[in-house]
Amino acid sequence: MLTVIYLTAITAEAMSGALAAGRRNMDIFGVAVIAFVTALGGGTLRDLVLGNFPVGWTQHPEYIYLVISAGLLTTVIAPYMHHLKHAFLVLDAMGLVAFSLIGVSVALGMDYPTVVVVMSGMITGICGGILRDVLCNQVPVVFRRELYASVSLAVCALFLVLREFGVNTDVNTLISFATGLSLRLLAIWRGWQLPTFSYQQRWE
Amino acid sequence: MLTVIYLTAITAEAMSGALAAGRRNMDIFGVAVIAFVTALGGGTLRDLVLGNFPVGWTQHPEYIYLVISAGLLTTVIAPYMHHLKHAFLVLDAMGLVAFSLIGVSVALGMDYPTVVVVMSGMITGICGGILRDVLCNQVPVVFRRELYASVSLAVCALFLVLREFGVNTDVNTLISFATGLSLRLLAIWRGWQLPTFSYQQRWE
Amino acid sequence: MLTVIYLTAITAEAMSGALAAGRRNMDIFGVAVIAFVTALGGGTLRDLVLGNFPVGWTQHPEYIYLVISAGLLTTVIAPYMHHLKHAFLVLDAMGLVAFSLIGVSVALGMDYPTVVVVMSGMITGICGGILRDVLCNQVPVVFRRELYASVSLAVCALFLVLREFGVNTDVNTLISFATGLSLRLLAIWRGWQLPTFSYQQRWE
Repeated sequence: MLTVIYLTAITAEAMSGALAAGRRNMDIFGVAVIAFVTALGGGTLRDLVLGNFPVGWTQHPEYIYLVISAGLLTTVIAPYMHHLKHAFLVLDAMGLVAFSLIGVSVALGMDYPTVVVVMSGMITGICGGILRDVLCNQVPVVFRRELYASVSLAVCALFLVLREFGVNTDVNTLISFATGLSLRLLAIWRGWQLPTFSYQQRWE
Repeated sequence: MLTVIYLTAITAEAMSGALAAGRRNMDIFGVAVIAFVTALGGGTLRDLVLGNFPVGWTQHPEYIYLVISAGLLTTVIAPYMHHLKHAFLVLDAMGLVAFSLIGVSVALGMDYPTVVVVMSGMITGICGGILRDVLCNQVPVVFRRELYASVSLAVCALFLVLREFGVNTDVNTLISFATGLSLRLLAIWRGWQLPTFSYQQRWE
Repeated sequence: MLTVIYLTAITAEAMSGALAAGRRNMDIFGVAVIAFVTALGGGTLRDLVLGNFPVGWTQHPEYIYLVISAGLLTTVIAPYMHHLKHAFLVLDAMGLVAFSLIGVSVALGMDYPTVVVVMSGMITGICGGILRDVLCNQVPVVFRRELYASVSLAVCALFLVLREFGVNTDVNTLISFATGLSLRLLAIWRGWQLPTFSYQQRWE
């Protein structure tokens, strides 16, 4: 089941990357690159930091074709995408939660300390979007948007706590997934935000 | 022969990096860093993603000295460089094509799937320029300029197709190199471009 | 002793990252990420480039807690931090020098060529700040500020020269550290700068 969700997730992330590229008037090649990086960049960075070679997508050519196709398709259906706004937000939220759980699972298989396992989940969940924004030359939105990265953190922590209590992995995945998805959608609906830190002094 | 072309290529890339640094009024240290990253950053990223350790330039100190010297020399000859415009464009095109073929060759030696081999060529060919633009705080030009990344893709694909047909590697390299170089120079001359994707709606 | 200095250094770097995040009005999650990346990003990049797995901080959860706490604490004490300007500059300078020496020491243990050892020191010393600035969408200040990266270079070179002369490692570390710290503080005090390269022609 996580595989189906994962494929849905990388498709949604690729589409979000393509839209960001369109906002910068990139050519279709740039669209393909940004789609790829948004969808698979978080997992790549996680594999590099954990020393988990070979990097995931290099063993799954079908993922590469999927995200590039999704990116290019987006250039065609873009004029109609605002009608799909709600579906898109749900897919994006599913992606965030699925990526986080996959990142946790990869690090758990490698004997890293607990806090590194959590960070592995978060790197997988949010770094694709960070790389997209850096390549599009803007401050990453995950650092400023309603609860996004925090949802990733909550999902990873919940999964590890339930695991500590001996909950079966499949059940645990289901509970963590549902909780994370609900939290993210609630955050969007209610406009929940973390407090912001503003600092304008220039004494350095 | 590819070695000579490679050395010419990293020199040309280092010079292009130095000019970009100059446009941001960096000090000579920044110039050296940007020159280095532009010339050797694509290969570094390729080696990281493929898990190909040790990273290439760490075993070739002479490359490091070469690109940093080229970067610093550029600050001296910059006032005269526009006279060399055409030579520079040819060197840059040679670099793009040579880098792509080298990236293909590295990945072929590591048993990666075909699409990853192509991506290895493209990462080597274009990521130095992407890193340069990110460090200089601008949207990467390769996502917007006349056929550039597409030339890298074409070269990698052509090389793999000819290889499949059993063409001798040296002959194949020569054909792919000449074809890629011609394509790039034609694209500059005729102003060939990929279609652009513009998307300005803000519903997310 | 280098450990104590190292902990002080990552704390100072985390605080500098938090202030940069505050200048971009990030939420407290963004503050934590930028603090982490500024403090530990340079070492991470060094470990990736050298193929030195597992990456340092993944084996030291306490570093992660320390830098994130320092980042969040900064959001509370920020209004008073300009009173600490001088202490902060000294801590930051200590960080730069300590990071550089640690990077040298890691590469020396891995049989890399001398110039790569120097680059390892510099990557560790300055790349945290570069990543911070890229994520905050600005041209890295280390490419433009008074002697900063050059101090890192000088410290690495001095350490390797003294080592070549057979100076005991502890004594060498002490001398290199003191020299580098003095050089950096002198540079701030006297406003020493490297020559700048400006290039505004657009012929490419």
